[in-house]
Amino acid sequence: MAPSEPATAPAAAPALSSAELAELAQQFRVDSVRMAAAAGSGHPTSSMSAAELLAVLLGRHFRYDFGWPEHPGNDRFVLSKGHASPLLYAAFKAAGAISDDEMMTFRRRGSRLEGHPTPQRLPWVEVATGSLGQGLPVGVGLALAAARLEEGDHRVWVLCGDSELAEGSVWEAAEHAAYEHLERLTLLVDVNRLGQRGPTRHGHDLSAYARRFAAFGWHTVEVDDGHDVDALDRAFNEARSTAGQPTVILARTLKGKGVAAAEDREGLHGKPLPDPEAAVEELGGVRDLHVRVQHPGVPRELRPAHRGALDLPHYAPGTHKSTRDAYGAALTALGTAREDVVALDGEVGDSTRTQLFAEEHPERYFECYIAEQQLVATATGMAVRGYLPYAATFAAFLTRAHDFVRMASVSGASLVLVGSHAGVGIGEDGPSQMGLEDLAMFRAVHGSTVVYPCDANQTAQLVAELAQQTGIRYLRTTRGDTPVVYTPGERFPIGGSKVLRAHDEDRLTVVTAGATVHEALAAADALAAYGIHVRVVDLYSVKPVDRATLREAAEQTGCLLTVEDHREEGGIGDAVACAFADGSPPPRLIRLAVRTMPGSATPAEQLRSAGVDAEAIAAAGRVLLGEALTP
Amino acid sequence: MAPSEPATAPAAAPALSSAELAELAQQFRVDSVRMAAAAGSGHPTSSMSAAELLAVLLGRHFRYDFGWPEHPGNDRFVLSKGHASPLLYAAFKAAGAISDDEMMTFRRRGSRLEGHPTPQRLPWVEVATGSLGQGLPVGVGLALAAARLEEGDHRVWVLCGDSELAEGSVWEAAEHAAYEHLERLTLLVDVNRLGQRGPTRHGHDLSAYARRFAAFGWHTVEVDDGHDVDALDRAFNEARSTAGQPTVILARTLKGKGVAAAEDREGLHGKPLPDPEAAVEELGGVRDLHVRVQHPGVPRELRPAHRGALDLPHYAPGTHKSTRDAYGAALTALGTAREDVVALDGEVGDSTRTQLFAEEHPERYFECYIAEQQLVATATGMAVRGYLPYAATFAAFLTRAHDFVRMASVSGASLVLVGSHAGVGIGEDGPSQMGLEDLAMFRAVHGSTVVYPCDANQTAQLVAELAQQTGIRYLRTTRGDTPVVYTPGERFPIGGSKVLRAHDEDRLTVVTAGATVHEALAAADALAAYGIHVRVVDLYSVKPVDRATLREAAEQTGCLLTVEDHREEGGIGDAVACAFADGSPPPRLIRLAVRTMPGSATPAEQLRSAGVDAEAIAAAGRVLLGEALTP
Repeated sequence: MAPSEPATAPAAAPALSSAELAELAQQFRVDSVRMAAAAGSGHPTSSMSAAELLAVLLGRHFRYDFGWPEHPGNDRFVLSKGHASPLLYAAFKAAGAISDDEMMTFRRRGSRLEGHPTPQRLPWVEVATGSLGQGLPVGVGLALAAARLEEGDHRVWVLCGDSELAEGSVWEAAEHAAYEHLERLTLLVDVNRLGQRGPTRHGHDLSAYARRFAAFGWHTVEVDDGHDVDALDRAFNEARSTAGQPTVILARTLKGKGVAAAEDREGLHGKPLPDPEAAVEELGGVRDLHVRVQHPGVPRELRPAHRGALDLPHYAPGTHKSTRDAYGAALTALGTAREDVVALDGEVGDSTRTQLFAEEHPERYFECYIAEQQLVATATGMAVRGYLPYAATFAAFLTRAHDFVRMASVSGASLVLVGSHAGVGIGEDGPSQMGLEDLAMFRAVHGSTVVYPCDANQTAQLVAELAQQTGIRYLRTTRGDTPVVYTPGERFPIGGSKVLRAHDEDRLTVVTAGATVHEALAAADALAAYGIHVRVVDLYSVKPVDRATLREAAEQTGCLLTVEDHREEGGIGDAVACAFADGSPPPRLIRLAVRTMPGSATPAEQLRSAGVDAEAIAAAGRVLLGEALTP
Repeated sequence: MAPSEPATAPAAAPALSSAELAELAQQFRVDSVRMAAAAGSGHPTSSMSAAELLAVLLGRHFRYDFGWPEHPGNDRFVLSKGHASPLLYAAFKAAGAISDDEMMTFRRRGSRLEGHPTPQRLPWVEVATGSLGQGLPVGVGLALAAARLEEGDHRVWVLCGDSELAEGSVWEAAEHAAYEHLERLTLLVDVNRLGQRGPTRHGHDLSAYARRFAAFGWHTVEVDDGHDVDALDRAFNEARSTAGQPTVILARTLKGKGVAAAEDREGLHGKPLPDPEAAVEELGGVRDLHVRVQHPGVPRELRPAHRGALDLPHYAPGTHKSTRDAYGAALTALGTAREDVVALDGEVGDSTRTQLFAEEHPERYFECYIAEQQLVATATGMAVRGYLPYAATFAAFLTRAHDFVRMASVSGASLVLVGSHAGVGIGEDGPSQMGLEDLAMFRAVHGSTVVYPCDANQTAQLVAELAQQTGIRYLRTTRGDTPVVYTPGERFPIGGSKVLRAHDEDRLTVVTAGATVHEALAAADALAAYGIHVRVVDLYSVKPVDRATLREAAEQTGCLLTVEDHREEGGIGDAVACAFADGSPPPRLIRLAVRTMPGSATPAEQLRSAGVDAEAIAAAGRVLLGEALTP
């Protein structure tokens, strides 16, 4: 098939015969055994069970240009069972994407072929996998983008294991996929009946899984012999001709298939075969088949996402507005300026204010319902295809998706997560709704950016600033109205901070961000009335942190008091301490943070009880400076 | 019914007539409206939809002694839709547990009646709720304990909303419950069709939910009018007579039922009714019905969990053993000594070594398959009933359960979580399997204890030490073998540390824990050969941290170098910085941590690439001390 010819129905032009497909599968097995043997580790048996699934996909149904991974018409493939990476790399070799020599560098330092595949090193990998149960959720994100944002008829294929169907995230995704009628999404399940430490709950009972998927609204196809390439081919064709719903292909397979000493046996998970040479021989020896993967055809003209002028909302200093309100308004403006911006929410858009975007740009709004793992997975799927997602829910509930955030970071995905209702300041709802660990969680994410604005103008600017960054970005917003202290249009570069109070006689610097900035200002003003001068730094960029300003404040005032509506660990206090962890003598450091388990109370009572309100700051300042109040 | 009389079948002795039940439900509505009006916030409409569900449960089926919440024969009730707390508190009033006056303190500072219920304040609440989709998972833990560890025929009732069925954790739990044949577990779903910001995916389509639960192996009962007390009563009886599988009762209800201005209307989630006085009147006015809840009967004799002598495993100094091996052996010994110890694992018991416990104490081992949220939820359910759970999986995958850990902390639950395969030192498997954020995650949990042993004897002792603590406890273990450096029987109190190298001329202290202790020792020994003396502190207790030893080291050596196989943020470096955040002048601090995204490599290569091996420590030491190597 010529590279420029549009794709046609595969049944009309099968790339490989059935016998060739069977041979290709056998080659995948041989190569998996070889790779694991050379590496001294890896998962050959988990690769061998799915060999025919991948051979039939690659040889007959997958449309992909390995020379142009970003081709908009490419199908997308996600290996959810990332430990079966040898199978994937064997397929890459057969497709001509990598050489046999490179394939055999599997799991070595510096090799692109890691134990679990990542797109940071391999351009044909959509997302990093290896934490089970994440492939389908991300596949839903890819398929949603395909269905709602993209032209073409490209498909999304996800290959997962049976063990990982125990993860609730799979069913979150199954619900989402059927509800959205993602007919171009196909899930391939390698039902090899064996998990890591023993049999799965349902063994080879395909119908147990089929009943579940069917109940969630999926079309289901059971393949009793998952090593029969013709049966699999028929299943793939059925998936491709199914309209209005996603399809799951449940293939009964054998772990370690093809090698008697390994086939269907326990105790061989994640290990090279005991006698790899004999295994290769038993599998018919080393082959070097090449498969010409179907081309996705000439892409329609690529229309770059429109970028126009950004007209951020403005707020008058002295008025009051919540940062979540400003988030919603600024995101809506950003969506108007940039067509690649998409917004997602976990069924709390009226609270996070994502609703404003949904009303203005409904075609780029994605409702994820109360399913935070799917929220982040959808954002990740869209991010790796070039969209700029802003995904919001309560800060507290982003902890639900921690592992998905972690894996998005391994993927190198660029997305913005927004946590509203942060801190004890939410008031009466109590601790279950309070984000008090979110800064710790996001600071520890590799390469992350963490910002925490204190007013509406700052929020609007930071929404725009975050669009310029890469990696995982986190914006923390607050429920209650706060005074507008910055003028519209003032800039807030990432990695910066603002000195809001400064005096030649400052003997202490209060470093804080977000809601407690206003408490710090009130405390500074109260102390100033007694002639006690305290500097106030608004550390809106919690990561990266503004070392220069903190260092200057330390040199000039000698002592830093950090204040945060967050747990003592991992937040602003730790961020400031980290800024002085370079071996030079640090200043005196003291921190105020939430050290108790709050109950219900008004926002003001909460800040007081937690000891992070203006009075507590002023009291701490007086104690530190040894001052009595003698005006 | 006399308090000491054993419970009998409820059909034979209904506590309340149908008319009385209907009145009771109406009272719940009235009280919900009153509470929210007095508080100025809260969720009356979400309470009103489930009023009959709770009235029929309380009046006819629930067996509970409000005077003795720990009664082993008590039924257990979990309000998964925790925002419907007014309904729960109205029920507590009707049952005589609280007065009307106390009820009206709802959501005020100091009140036991928080926005979302917590057992820390109310003895009749099993677990804190408010993060949706957690009630059923914890209910599974309670029901598993009932089925496998306890005598009696007490039941577990979970009331959840329809919106929260979008959470995958619900289906993780559904799978687990049916697989374990938890016939005494009943899920009541208040299908009021409205979520926070609008309609749910399936609206009032009960069959959509029934299909899903049935596919997962549940008995399902659909109640077309969830406000019909007789229909509900029949459903409850059906649930109680169903053998071999859990039952879900799907009740079609109306949000805001009974008040025309609110009934089945959008836009009224989480707000007091606009005109509460008129609403109370429309509902028939304030009532003061009391319900005599069926007594659980005389408990069988309580047999206190046996506690015998603890015979921890011993390891010979100089030999090599992984800390995960020692964990498995020590946990097994602890299980022999203490009958209240239960062990759980996420289908990786062969890796975490929980398998050793499973082999020795199969009756107290709980396999949770690849479902980390369920793993932590099961542990939480068992913890609140007085068991001491040790739940293990890879450290990386505990991030999957972060929100469950957070809520367990809000519950005040006491349990031990164990993360194996921590750090880059796992080697070839790559970043998806590396726990690099776990210390940050667990340090930020309120009241947590975090330990990270470096050798097998220390691990064994810490497994025992953790049993003595309360709250969330985290033990971090390592995959590879490490040298045994401590003698058997040496004690490691929580909050302590060990000085492993000390010299009068120490000019630097290396503070580390776990795998990198051995790197620090090698570095110290290498530097000592050149006459450079470096102190080494094994900070096995990462939280709480040993301030006294760190302070002494700071005073005597002037400079602390922290080293950790973890991200720079939230781990050992931050813990040490925090120890000096008391306003006194801190020492010079420098940190070595994992600052890159690792790929595949051998364990030794990983530590080298991350810059946390002996060579990197020695190099940092030389730079800090301005020393060239001139022996």
